[in-house]
Amino acid sequence: MGLDISAGWAELDALFPGRIERGQALREQHGLGDSWHPAMPPEAVFMARTTEEVASVMAVCHRHALPVVPFGAGSSIEGQVQAVRGGLSLDLSGMTRILRIGQGDMDCTVEAGVTRQALNEELRATGLFFPIDVGTHATLGGLASNNASGTITVRYGTMRNLVMGLTVVLADGRIVKTGGRARKSSSGYDLTRLLIGAEGTLGIITELTLRLHGVPERSIGGLYGFETIEAATQTVVEAMQCGLGLNRIELLDALQVRAINLYNRTDLPERPSLMVDMAGTELQVAADMDLFGDLATGHGATIRLAETPEAYNALWKLRHSALYAARALKPGCSSLSTDVCVPVTNLPAVIRAIKDRIEAAGVVAPLHGHVGDGNFHLVMLFDPAEPGELETIRALHAELIEMAIAFDGTITGEHGVGLGKKPYMEAEHGGALDVMREIKRALDPKNILNPGKIFDL
Amino acid sequence: MGLDISAGWAELDALFPGRIERGQALREQHGLGDSWHPAMPPEAVFMARTTEEVASVMAVCHRHALPVVPFGAGSSIEGQVQAVRGGLSLDLSGMTRILRIGQGDMDCTVEAGVTRQALNEELRATGLFFPIDVGTHATLGGLASNNASGTITVRYGTMRNLVMGLTVVLADGRIVKTGGRARKSSSGYDLTRLLIGAEGTLGIITELTLRLHGVPERSIGGLYGFETIEAATQTVVEAMQCGLGLNRIELLDALQVRAINLYNRTDLPERPSLMVDMAGTELQVAADMDLFGDLATGHGATIRLAETPEAYNALWKLRHSALYAARALKPGCSSLSTDVCVPVTNLPAVIRAIKDRIEAAGVVAPLHGHVGDGNFHLVMLFDPAEPGELETIRALHAELIEMAIAFDGTITGEHGVGLGKKPYMEAEHGGALDVMREIKRALDPKNILNPGKIFDL
Repeated sequence: MGLDISAGWAELDALFPGRIERGQALREQHGLGDSWHPAMPPEAVFMARTTEEVASVMAVCHRHALPVVPFGAGSSIEGQVQAVRGGLSLDLSGMTRILRIGQGDMDCTVEAGVTRQALNEELRATGLFFPIDVGTHATLGGLASNNASGTITVRYGTMRNLVMGLTVVLADGRIVKTGGRARKSSSGYDLTRLLIGAEGTLGIITELTLRLHGVPERSIGGLYGFETIEAATQTVVEAMQCGLGLNRIELLDALQVRAINLYNRTDLPERPSLMVDMAGTELQVAADMDLFGDLATGHGATIRLAETPEAYNALWKLRHSALYAARALKPGCSSLSTDVCVPVTNLPAVIRAIKDRIEAAGVVAPLHGHVGDGNFHLVMLFDPAEPGELETIRALHAELIEMAIAFDGTITGEHGVGLGKKPYMEAEHGGALDVMREIKRALDPKNILNPGKIFDL
Repeated sequence: MGLDISAGWAELDALFPGRIERGQALREQHGLGDSWHPAMPPEAVFMARTTEEVASVMAVCHRHALPVVPFGAGSSIEGQVQAVRGGLSLDLSGMTRILRIGQGDMDCTVEAGVTRQALNEELRATGLFFPIDVGTHATLGGLASNNASGTITVRYGTMRNLVMGLTVVLADGRIVKTGGRARKSSSGYDLTRLLIGAEGTLGIITELTLRLHGVPERSIGGLYGFETIEAATQTVVEAMQCGLGLNRIELLDALQVRAINLYNRTDLPERPSLMVDMAGTELQVAADMDLFGDLATGHGATIRLAETPEAYNALWKLRHSALYAARALKPGCSSLSTDVCVPVTNLPAVIRAIKDRIEAAGVVAPLHGHVGDGNFHLVMLFDPAEPGELETIRALHAELIEMAIAFDGTITGEHGVGLGKKPYMEAEHGGALDVMREIKRALDPKNILNPGKIFDL
């Protein structure tokens, strides 16, 4: 096996002279991500330029059973890019071509290294946009591989709803296309959605065909402060049932609002809060915002509307600072970011239960989330130099996940499994986990595609 | 092998005395569907009552390599229920319990034999409904297995968008649960969407957790008559880009309108027509309908609005008669119903091209479709007693499918593959078809689950 792999490296070096890079800094950067998991550098890094190059690399790696870890922007949170078994980091961030924009069909095809910001910049003149709104500059390939979502998912859905087709390089180097440009199909197995969220363990996404949406005519934001988390989440449940044109409905606990104030020097009322965004026609948005205001005041909320474009942008800039603001609460500390997702009516119970445990443990852990989907994040701060702090936090993390499962939820709404949620897959999926394993073994019999992620074989 | 199978039958008979039914009429009904494909009756029929019974049956059939064809309402069109290799028809239509309605979370869990009509009847008091609108009384298990969609898919999506989780019996009798009640998840492979549209070849769906939606406050319908198909489809392209609150946007060619008039004794103008439905708040619907009217008259349309509930219901009752009206155009004839789906901007070219060919061949084939998604149906009538008529129609069918692929589309938008579209899978999917085969072999190594459907191994 060892010998075989060194023959593999020699073959890669011969195939791409000087492009199989082994610099220490590059390797370390490629083995970390935006993660609390320790870095595990790959043995080398290859910056791919085309699908065909990816296919050539995979053919060699397959022959020699050499592990390959796909890499985009390195913004994954759960240890998705850690090279557990060494091998090659296959970096797609240089594949940044926008191949086609279909304005009439509201779709486009891009290479995997395009970021959503770059795509939306390119789309600006068309009146269309790609509706995934996450906090980081992730690549679209990475967003697909983790089934990312974010603040406007409550309206537009996750990557699984927004990707129509893929070009994928399989473990053995075959290039296949899944899905296509038709807006729906009943033609065979849905390989597109199987590959989305597979975290690079079934194939390497090199191109994506995406569904676009029209930029809404008008958006209005609002900040609603409540006495309690329960009052806020009850308002969410009611708003979801009313069929309002909700574009975003985000929860922040009082500590998260405080963190935002400190980080941005703002003066938001430090209460459990909802940040809400209505989008649609002028007429509809005004009517929906009124109705939402009635629901919120019915639960004792104070209201600050953000009606001008400036106020609106300022509000959502604050929201997007949430993660960095949370991390800045205890300077010099590390943080464990996690997310779970439960049915919306179970949110109050789960949030109350985990907040009680966090308080009892004396841990600082601001909470924010996409509560229209039942999804929330905790950023648990710890001092790596303090003995026991990480252990306390890991125990709270485990409790949170057990609660999510007990309340009919999932162990991760959008961060993915990577290394961090692997121990909990059995508890969530039971026998279905074996089905995942059977599919993995069928499509990657040598276990070379991002081995050791999501589950062990 | 033969001996083995007869031991399997004996074991089934012993396990469920008197319930492995072999009456000829029952067997014939279970081997046909609503299909132009010849009947292929199973050797026996079993009416399952519980998931556990399905699991027991599958465990026996797996041991003895006995083929199993899942059966719901028998409304599939492409030969999905034909027992190509004999075996057992496993009928789930008796599993009709609605297990849970989550009003606050807008979801529910049902057994696979529940029809969408029965579910919506049960939901009536809640203000919620399940938004799949197909012409037949199909079961929800069958709708999922074919990734069904229909007239309101342009707004609410297909079964893949609306099913959150499944209970599935695998080929070897294991019971697994996929997905769940969280509105999104990044936890492992998306087995739910892999099973949806797999036409019972990967597992037997016995329970479904479904996403529900609120019944819109107000709906208005309208019928728009155009000079040409192109004027109608161009209006569709423009309407899709405006982000109107479209609930339905259906195309009927002049022949289809004539068929509806004859069948229902109505006097609709016999022109290429759009039937449109806006849903939302009173305010929004009125504004959107005005805007749509402007677009349509810009393309020379005449307009008949259906604003009262009576007129609205009458309009959509006519639309739902389209298939039966089409078949009644030539009494005593048979029909080949097919569907394809292409990017919306390619609709005019594909429809023009196939209609030219149909006209040249002298075939009667009304057209209707869910054109907001780029999906349309042709009902090609033929006299089975007339030599050569079926061959002419099969040739046109093949041409239509080749056009759909050439215009970046899919060979079926909602009918599924079954037997009828199998010959074209390679042309649409290329190397991805082998990936489907690899998954099938991994999950059903003895090829007992609906063998011979979608593709050959």
